[in-house]
Amino acid sequence: MWGGRFDEAPDAVMRAINASLPFDKVMWRQDIAASRAHAEMLAAQGIVSAVDVAAIDAGLAQLAEEFERDGPPDGDDEDIHMAVEARLTALIGPAAGRLHTARSRNDQVATDFRLWVRDAIDRASAAIGAMRAALLDRAEQHADAVMPGFTHLQSAQPVTLGHHLMAWLEMLVRDASRFTDARARANQSPLGSAALAGTGFPVDRHATAQALGFDGPTANSLDSVSDRDFAIEFLTAATQCALHLSRMAEEIVIWASQPFGFVDLPDRWSTGSSIMPQKRNPDAAELVRGHSGRIMGCLTALMVTMKGLPLAYSKDMQDDKEPVFEAAGMLQVSLAAMTGMVRELTFRTDRMRTLAESGFATATDLADWLVREADVPFREAHHIVGRAVKLAEERGCGLPELPLADLQSIDARIDDRVFDVLTIDASVASRTSHGGTAPVRVREAIAAARAALESSK
Amino acid sequence: MWGGRFDEAPDAVMRAINASLPFDKVMWRQDIAASRAHAEMLAAQGIVSAVDVAAIDAGLAQLAEEFERDGPPDGDDEDIHMAVEARLTALIGPAAGRLHTARSRNDQVATDFRLWVRDAIDRASAAIGAMRAALLDRAEQHADAVMPGFTHLQSAQPVTLGHHLMAWLEMLVRDASRFTDARARANQSPLGSAALAGTGFPVDRHATAQALGFDGPTANSLDSVSDRDFAIEFLTAATQCALHLSRMAEEIVIWASQPFGFVDLPDRWSTGSSIMPQKRNPDAAELVRGHSGRIMGCLTALMVTMKGLPLAYSKDMQDDKEPVFEAAGMLQVSLAAMTGMVRELTFRTDRMRTLAESGFATATDLADWLVREADVPFREAHHIVGRAVKLAEERGCGLPELPLADLQSIDARIDDRVFDVLTIDASVASRTSHGGTAPVRVREAIAAARAALESSK
Amino acid sequence: MWGGRFDEAPDAVMRAINASLPFDKVMWRQDIAASRAHAEMLAAQGIVSAVDVAAIDAGLAQLAEEFERDGPPDGDDEDIHMAVEARLTALIGPAAGRLHTARSRNDQVATDFRLWVRDAIDRASAAIGAMRAALLDRAEQHADAVMPGFTHLQSAQPVTLGHHLMAWLEMLVRDASRFTDARARANQSPLGSAALAGTGFPVDRHATAQALGFDGPTANSLDSVSDRDFAIEFLTAATQCALHLSRMAEEIVIWASQPFGFVDLPDRWSTGSSIMPQKRNPDAAELVRGHSGRIMGCLTALMVTMKGLPLAYSKDMQDDKEPVFEAAGMLQVSLAAMTGMVRELTFRTDRMRTLAESGFATATDLADWLVREADVPFREAHHIVGRAVKLAEERGCGLPELPLADLQSIDARIDDRVFDVLTIDASVASRTSHGGTAPVRVREAIAAARAALESSK
Amino acid sequence: MWGGRFDEAPDAVMRAINASLPFDKVMWRQDIAASRAHAEMLAAQGIVSAVDVAAIDAGLAQLAEEFERDGPPDGDDEDIHMAVEARLTALIGPAAGRLHTARSRNDQVATDFRLWVRDAIDRASAAIGAMRAALLDRAEQHADAVMPGFTHLQSAQPVTLGHHLMAWLEMLVRDASRFTDARARANQSPLGSAALAGTGFPVDRHATAQALGFDGPTANSLDSVSDRDFAIEFLTAATQCALHLSRMAEEIVIWASQPFGFVDLPDRWSTGSSIMPQKRNPDAAELVRGHSGRIMGCLTALMVTMKGLPLAYSKDMQDDKEPVFEAAGMLQVSLAAMTGMVRELTFRTDRMRTLAESGFATATDLADWLVREADVPFREAHHIVGRAVKLAEERGCGLPELPLADLQSIDARIDDRVFDVLTIDASVASRTSHGGTAPVRVREAIAAARAALESSK
Repeated sequence: MWGGRFDEAPDAVMRAINASLPFDKVMWRQDIAASRAHAEMLAAQGIVSAVDVAAIDAGLAQLAEEFERDGPPDGDDEDIHMAVEARLTALIGPAAGRLHTARSRNDQVATDFRLWVRDAIDRASAAIGAMRAALLDRAEQHADAVMPGFTHLQSAQPVTLGHHLMAWLEMLVRDASRFTDARARANQSPLGSAALAGTGFPVDRHATAQALGFDGPTANSLDSVSDRDFAIEFLTAATQCALHLSRMAEEIVIWASQPFGFVDLPDRWSTGSSIMPQKRNPDAAELVRGHSGRIMGCLTALMVTMKGLPLAYSKDMQDDKEPVFEAAGMLQVSLAAMTGMVRELTFRTDRMRTLAESGFATATDLADWLVREADVPFREAHHIVGRAVKLAEERGCGLPELPLADLQSIDARIDDRVFDVLTIDASVASRTSHGGTAPVRVREAIAAARAALESSK
Repeated sequence: MWGGRFDEAPDAVMRAINASLPFDKVMWRQDIAASRAHAEMLAAQGIVSAVDVAAIDAGLAQLAEEFERDGPPDGDDEDIHMAVEARLTALIGPAAGRLHTARSRNDQVATDFRLWVRDAIDRASAAIGAMRAALLDRAEQHADAVMPGFTHLQSAQPVTLGHHLMAWLEMLVRDASRFTDARARANQSPLGSAALAGTGFPVDRHATAQALGFDGPTANSLDSVSDRDFAIEFLTAATQCALHLSRMAEEIVIWASQPFGFVDLPDRWSTGSSIMPQKRNPDAAELVRGHSGRIMGCLTALMVTMKGLPLAYSKDMQDDKEPVFEAAGMLQVSLAAMTGMVRELTFRTDRMRTLAESGFATATDLADWLVREADVPFREAHHIVGRAVKLAEERGCGLPELPLADLQSIDARIDDRVFDVLTIDASVASRTSHGGTAPVRVREAIAAARAALESSK
Repeated sequence: MWGGRFDEAPDAVMRAINASLPFDKVMWRQDIAASRAHAEMLAAQGIVSAVDVAAIDAGLAQLAEEFERDGPPDGDDEDIHMAVEARLTALIGPAAGRLHTARSRNDQVATDFRLWVRDAIDRASAAIGAMRAALLDRAEQHADAVMPGFTHLQSAQPVTLGHHLMAWLEMLVRDASRFTDARARANQSPLGSAALAGTGFPVDRHATAQALGFDGPTANSLDSVSDRDFAIEFLTAATQCALHLSRMAEEIVIWASQPFGFVDLPDRWSTGSSIMPQKRNPDAAELVRGHSGRIMGCLTALMVTMKGLPLAYSKDMQDDKEPVFEAAGMLQVSLAAMTGMVRELTFRTDRMRTLAESGFATATDLADWLVREADVPFREAHHIVGRAVKLAEERGCGLPELPLADLQSIDARIDDRVFDVLTIDASVASRTSHGGTAPVRVREAIAAARAALESSK
Repeated sequence: MWGGRFDEAPDAVMRAINASLPFDKVMWRQDIAASRAHAEMLAAQGIVSAVDVAAIDAGLAQLAEEFERDGPPDGDDEDIHMAVEARLTALIGPAAGRLHTARSRNDQVATDFRLWVRDAIDRASAAIGAMRAALLDRAEQHADAVMPGFTHLQSAQPVTLGHHLMAWLEMLVRDASRFTDARARANQSPLGSAALAGTGFPVDRHATAQALGFDGPTANSLDSVSDRDFAIEFLTAATQCALHLSRMAEEIVIWASQPFGFVDLPDRWSTGSSIMPQKRNPDAAELVRGHSGRIMGCLTALMVTMKGLPLAYSKDMQDDKEPVFEAAGMLQVSLAAMTGMVRELTFRTDRMRTLAESGFATATDLADWLVREADVPFREAHHIVGRAVKLAEERGCGLPELPLADLQSIDARIDDRVFDVLTIDASVASRTSHGGTAPVRVREAIAAARAALESSK
């Protein structure tokens, strides 16, 4: 393959460490598409004859059919590029050798990989969109259902389940936005940068860029073959999304525990135990959480690999693909699993309400009432309520169950209007600030988010 | 501080692990600015009296002067928020207790931290701009200087130094773009989300957002206090930028080695040795490379910390700040050091030229000539040239020094026109494809990049 | 400092990125100890006169007193080594210049840093020992208390709290063992390796090694100044320990939630909220969990920094210290906080027992009974019990509450002896396999662990 | 599989995310071995009849043959444990259902995985041993060959190539030691811990431990199924080893560059270029460097995944295997490739010598001479030599070429004996301190290392 300068074939270990076909074969569609665009341009520019290019194009079309039918190539070729060229040569003879005019594997692999990453971004974006739609449906269904809101996993203030699910949605909105930005930066064509210096053949890089759906050619040939920002940026967006899914999965695992009992997992999304017949485990949620660690590992792998490489292409960069392929696959199945669970989970809103009513969750409402109605500075109100909570705790009751006399013994300014704010429904309904948990606000937020999702399609 | 429910003070170890004032005090400007905006809104909405707010505002202004003069507060307060409130109370008395109406430390710290990150992004963007300007100047100066282009750190094809420096610039252009995107996503105000559920006070979140230069309020109160995407995204942009600087630094270290000898480090950017008097070490470049590892460690730290946290705020999130503060500082000094070196390095273009002329760097040009002039398929041409290189290697000469007869003994289609393409100047001049290394292309690229830099200001 | 070859002083940015005194000053004790050992050896070997060495030694002793009293040096010196030498020169004059004979900062910093890491290991080991002791006390106290054992955070089988706490202890036993191994590998003296090649002075490296408590000198001078394995290995042991603490902290946070209610946090280990007066938050546990992410970030930082550095010393390696110092500090406070919580937590064993009795936790016991008493293959027994659980779930009762007739309707081989195995106490008492949760086994394990802890002192 | 409690089969996405057979099938040997040991113990303890166990054992033996011949199982089974049990059931009928008595998949997978990791450690240790042997041979061959020693990649002091290769060896000695420690800690049997609580069957955990080559059973059943320290510790040892290989690979890449020219890569360990016929690329070294980043990514993945998991088993832990399998494979091929290169590289010692003679590499020797012969304090000597270097640099000559008069004009104490120390051979020969680069010391070190390697076998 490397021509006349080599006398000896590579060592078996050398071949083993060097071969990328076992994994880069998944890019066969991208490789053939890029070769066809390149060949068409070579003909249009008069660099290779129309006859030869017609043969090349027909051969590549035939190869595409073959791989679609029989699966991508395997065997002893070093990589997908050599595998395609070898099969093309077998099909059409020496004219195949003209396809590599004015390009190098360095710009070829950069092109293929960008195309693959672009497709992966599109798949991730679509899956995020589907999950957003699922969340909107469930949030709407439970816009009024009261649950305990937690900070530090301690009961804090009542919120609605719809509001909580919309918090999940917000994370995904940012994820979608990051993938969009990453796509725009990635969508530049390195094809025609050749080995590193550009080429002396009169190529038309704008034409190949357009044929492949890129926004245009990259600006510097040396950078084009050295750069893997697009892959790292895909992995950063994927990792941030995975971290979000992991947070949601953590909540599902906790909510599905017997002491919480906030959700029931349907059979279709549970597993059992080989030894404990009663078990119904939230495996999918746990695996989403586990996958987030591994997706982050993929990001680490590529960042570490690129750190400190001199320009232009170094073979270390062959280690860019497996982390990206693995992470893309894990993100996709994680999004699908979370979407399925969001759609099919049973939310036990009765249990949520019961727990929201315990834990002194309306203590802040009492403090706010003192501020509003008795003009007590907030800091002082906070202190008064702390004493009321302590008293209720000693009595073993909730704040609404404390007799007025007891409340007044703590602070005489409290009167019986206070009981209006101590119920969880009143508490939730009162939080009408922009972005607040009041059902009226949540429904507005759902409507706005639905419109945003529609317009992003 | 936590009012009436607690009987005992925290353990000393508890205080030690819990205290954030030693590091979050660097956000005192942001904390005071956010408090002033909040107070002004409380007055405008009639939540707190104008008299009290005037006192609060004057007190905060006085505090700002004090911290500017004497440095940020230290002492036993738990965090910067409590330190500010404590000093404000000392200054203006109980009215200070009204400032915390309709907010919580949860939205307060999210607001302060977003403001700090926004400033850090602006500092990084400005520093990247300065480095781009420095690169453009040096690239222009050396647009025609020929150096060996490397792949695998092996001599590959001649390029110009200007072209190489413009590859560095391209990395920075992407970095700037990422920081811009990160800023847009970060620039939403969480203020008014209160603890997690919003507030029942009639706050105007749009007003505080506008007063603080945000694009608007965030959409979901629960998400607002749970979200640290803006910090992670700052760290991802910082890490990608640092990885770029590390690649450039790796090249400077290699170029400064005696065997390469491509650059001379000025005294101002070198260090010596405590034992070896002849040493002149590229410490700044090495430290930039080292810092990139640590910036990536900061990213890892925050991602790991956020992974799997249930909503809303958990105290783990207090560990968000030090990684961001450290990474921001290291990025800033790294950019400054690289900019200084780019400006002041002496490029030994004579040495570059000498090395470009060795290493058979124009072998591709010979292959391309065979394709163009003798209609040899590229693969065959590649093989022919491989044999020519081997012959030259055996003779101990370069390709241009091989007698025509020898070349013709390898392939009879070669004639004496071939010597026109075997010089490094001819090679470089011929690479006129878009983004190629031909000086004419490089000068165009510099002009376009200068315009883009100008318009980004 | 770098002598006669430099004309210009470093740029301000260069000084800023290069200075390590702000952080490496914490090694002043190690630096002075190593210098005194080196000086003593220089005298013993006749390399420097006894008179000069006596002056050096007295000067260093005086410096040590000064730093002990006034804190470590700051100022413009580049690092702790130069700071010490500069002050020594001020004290004793030119004889100070003889101290650097036959050494370099490269072996000096490697020596200082190994000594510091060795101390950090000793501190960590002692803290782990204290936590093991605390766990043993609490495990003994609760060796019989039944709680639900979880897998997938779902009720699985009853265990005892003592057994659970002993699982925590096992993690710490492994951590202690790893620190011991790391210490042994670290405890080799690089002093006398000089810049990288060794020295021509007749130094006695065994003597300085012995004086500093090392097991002996390192074997290769080049490796000695290039190697930071000891720091990475400290960080790996610290990270594994921190991950363990994070798992325990996760459990404390979950156990402290209202729905679980397994533990009450004492005031001394809780914090409140600035807005919600009822809150009692497990901040210490959350911060331990958060710190684990940052300790892992420190490990990442140093691994990335060292990856791919050519030998011998490169300045990137100056970025080795801050991650180690930070991680050591965070590990220490995390261990102290966890030990405090283990000692002072109130375990609500009544609540644990109540929950252990729900969730069909003895389903496996029923299956095992079928295997033992009715010779049913386990797989079939598992299936039978699954149906029983489903029936109980429909009836809204536990397994022990199912009437015998119902059980026999599922499988006729069940008789009334089965009820003996369906209580949680019977279940726990039956698990007598080695390492099992039966109280008798747990008490044995505690006794063995106590003996092991004693013998490790 | 999960018996009577489930009505519906899992969703297709659920099956996809849940299935581990595609990767855990590589543990089939371990799974069968552990099942045979378990079955034998069940018979010996009278838990299952000898007849049934004989059938189980024969069936497992037959399965082992089948998998050896046809490859490990695939299909729809969830994991390797269920796949083996399903095939066993097909072979021997219901008796197969007795094999799972007194165990759970939780202890089963922990056992299988520990056995696999133990094997991986043994493979890594053997490969490290082979590389140490190769290094010793090459170090011996070049114990006297002088090359430039670098710090900061700047010529520092002359060393011998043998000394440099022995620095590589020292790294591997530590790696071997770490793997040995990791093996000892891993080699405990979790089998018999059952789901998490131990078992009521009268199992003999010591017997199964012994049958599988473990040092004994683990101490706590809950910890046994929750613990993945052994996998993390394997990955930390693998990562540290990979970082070492990456440093060596970095040196090979730099040494193979034309400007250095220290090594020639044999054809068997080089690759060419698809476009540049003259190229001979050090791909194997680059891939070793790249793999180190990915191995570190595997470590990150598992650490992140385990961080913060409550006890006991969570399904996140299924994500433990792929990182370990991948890292083990990459480490193995990296060690093999580096060993091959070490054996077959051509060291161009002439080129090394030439470069060692430039760069003022004996400046320290001159300073040391001034200390020794003229009793100049080292700091002053350092300054004098700095001026000499500057003078030589201006004259464009080396230190040995400076006329004595010039040297004396800088410092009158210099006399003509100084020229004896300014040659690189004299410099190298003089560094006779323990661990120094003098050939006599290097040969001693080689002999000691050979003995240590022998005794470790």
